[in-house]
Amino acid sequence: MIRPDWIAVDWGTTHCRAWAMGADGTMLAEAQSAEGMGQLAPAAPEAYEAALLRLIGPWLGQAPVSIVACGMIGARQGWIEAPYMPVPCAPVGGGAIRPTTRDPRLALRILPGLSQSAPADVMRGEETQIAGALALRPGFDGVIVLPGTHSKWAHVSAGEVVSFRSFLTGELFALLSGQSVLRHSTGEGWQADAFAAAVEDSLSRPAALASRLFSIRAEDLLHGLAPGVGRARLSGLLIGMELAAAKPYWLGQPVTILGADRLADAYATALAAQGVHVARIDATEATCAGLAAAHALLKETA
Amino acid sequence: MIRPDWIAVDWGTTHCRAWAMGADGTMLAEAQSAEGMGQLAPAAPEAYEAALLRLIGPWLGQAPVSIVACGMIGARQGWIEAPYMPVPCAPVGGGAIRPTTRDPRLALRILPGLSQSAPADVMRGEETQIAGALALRPGFDGVIVLPGTHSKWAHVSAGEVVSFRSFLTGELFALLSGQSVLRHSTGEGWQADAFAAAVEDSLSRPAALASRLFSIRAEDLLHGLAPGVGRARLSGLLIGMELAAAKPYWLGQPVTILGADRLADAYATALAAQGVHVARIDATEATCAGLAAAHALLKETA
Repeated sequence: MIRPDWIAVDWGTTHCRAWAMGADGTMLAEAQSAEGMGQLAPAAPEAYEAALLRLIGPWLGQAPVSIVACGMIGARQGWIEAPYMPVPCAPVGGGAIRPTTRDPRLALRILPGLSQSAPADVMRGEETQIAGALALRPGFDGVIVLPGTHSKWAHVSAGEVVSFRSFLTGELFALLSGQSVLRHSTGEGWQADAFAAAVEDSLSRPAALASRLFSIRAEDLLHGLAPGVGRARLSGLLIGMELAAAKPYWLGQPVTILGADRLADAYATALAAQGVHVARIDATEATCAGLAAAHALLKETA
Repeated sequence: MIRPDWIAVDWGTTHCRAWAMGADGTMLAEAQSAEGMGQLAPAAPEAYEAALLRLIGPWLGQAPVSIVACGMIGARQGWIEAPYMPVPCAPVGGGAIRPTTRDPRLALRILPGLSQSAPADVMRGEETQIAGALALRPGFDGVIVLPGTHSKWAHVSAGEVVSFRSFLTGELFALLSGQSVLRHSTGEGWQADAFAAAVEDSLSRPAALASRLFSIRAEDLLHGLAPGVGRARLSGLLIGMELAAAKPYWLGQPVTILGADRLADAYATALAAQGVHVARIDATEATCAGLAAAHALLKETA
């Protein structure tokens, strides 16, 4: 029987993941469901509470358990809105919201995201991963990249997120490879040289993106593309354009990438080709460490 | 009873349009259906013939009638492939394909598109509009823009298409406004100042596209966007990036825009703001004039 000291929850748009944590910081168990924010009725607390109980119910005894959650669950359309904290600020600790629950055992706190007024920007969930990176690398100062649907670049200094910038890169890749005319030319496979060349092309002339995108299709029609070339080139063009815009973040700076998946690999490859020293932190590890940091801070201030 | 001398057909992905033409060049009637290439089985000649007969059957008597068709009907997945003609070449006249039909009255010719080897590029349908522009403006020399799902810029000189470039701009707008996270912030309306400012932003720093796109959503969440701002800004960012890449085409040159719809208006506004002298030709008029030019050339060589 698992009886956690507290429970860590990462509740995003597509998934809900939970970890049963021991008092000594060990992970006792984990659970995951596909009941993400996108699956649940907007701002319907009872639906969220039911989904949470389905996931972590087996870990609950009689006594209330502290639960710390991050992610889209705190959006306006989520369980309850946890308003953004404006940067510069520490990535977690302030502004957590405690929703009322029917089940008295759920001592739940939802962490807010971060906002930046100008240029207008927001994050929700990534702030917890950044807190995790700070916990895993005490004294960390520098640039963190979080690849994803809406990738983020963050300047972190003295324990605070100083500024950040989001890019629609991942969503563009999904739409273009899945639903545009390019879907016929960006099937499975990954040709590393095509990726590297496309990153260079895009970095040197980012404006040409829309014509280079069309060229993927045209070249396939006219000359035929080897398997994996179209997909790698599409990714390279988009990541190259992001790197061109994010240059003030990485030029002459070491960069820490949060992520261990193929997308994070692509960012690491592209940055390394520009002579950037790249460090990696596993994203899940960062999420758990960030939720633990938030839990410790919330206990202090409780 | 309408008995045309010949029939002009523009058969694209989503629609088929036909015009019954008199011997003196007057238009006797027009017809349109939604049986575009996308609705018909790939490379199924009998389905295409049946769709064509549904549309123009009322105009047919006993005798064969000359029919000239342009557009995606000539793609590999269309009625029959009319292989691309490589530029530089005249926009129409060469390479027309005559498919066999069951109905002996259909003396059909399908016009090929144009291709460019490097940078790899293709067009299908637009070449006929360019031929129409040349017919409507005899002696035309210069730059023609064809806004659309895959907009085209073409250098035309001495009656030939010298080079051209396609941009995925229109398809990006459709995907982003219809299916990305931006769909929540790019509803109806059009704020002209937001469009103009976004064009300038994108022209001056095209690499920032993916972050500026995300900012549309973030600014709406944080500060609220007035109606029409998000949509106009999205369009301006994409068209501005296209203009940045197409600068060699328009800098210090008059430009002729083929189109009279709101999208063509947007291109005209953006180019005029850069001090470019813009002329306009109606796209349908150009299509008909181009098909007529092709018909005259095919008659000569028949």
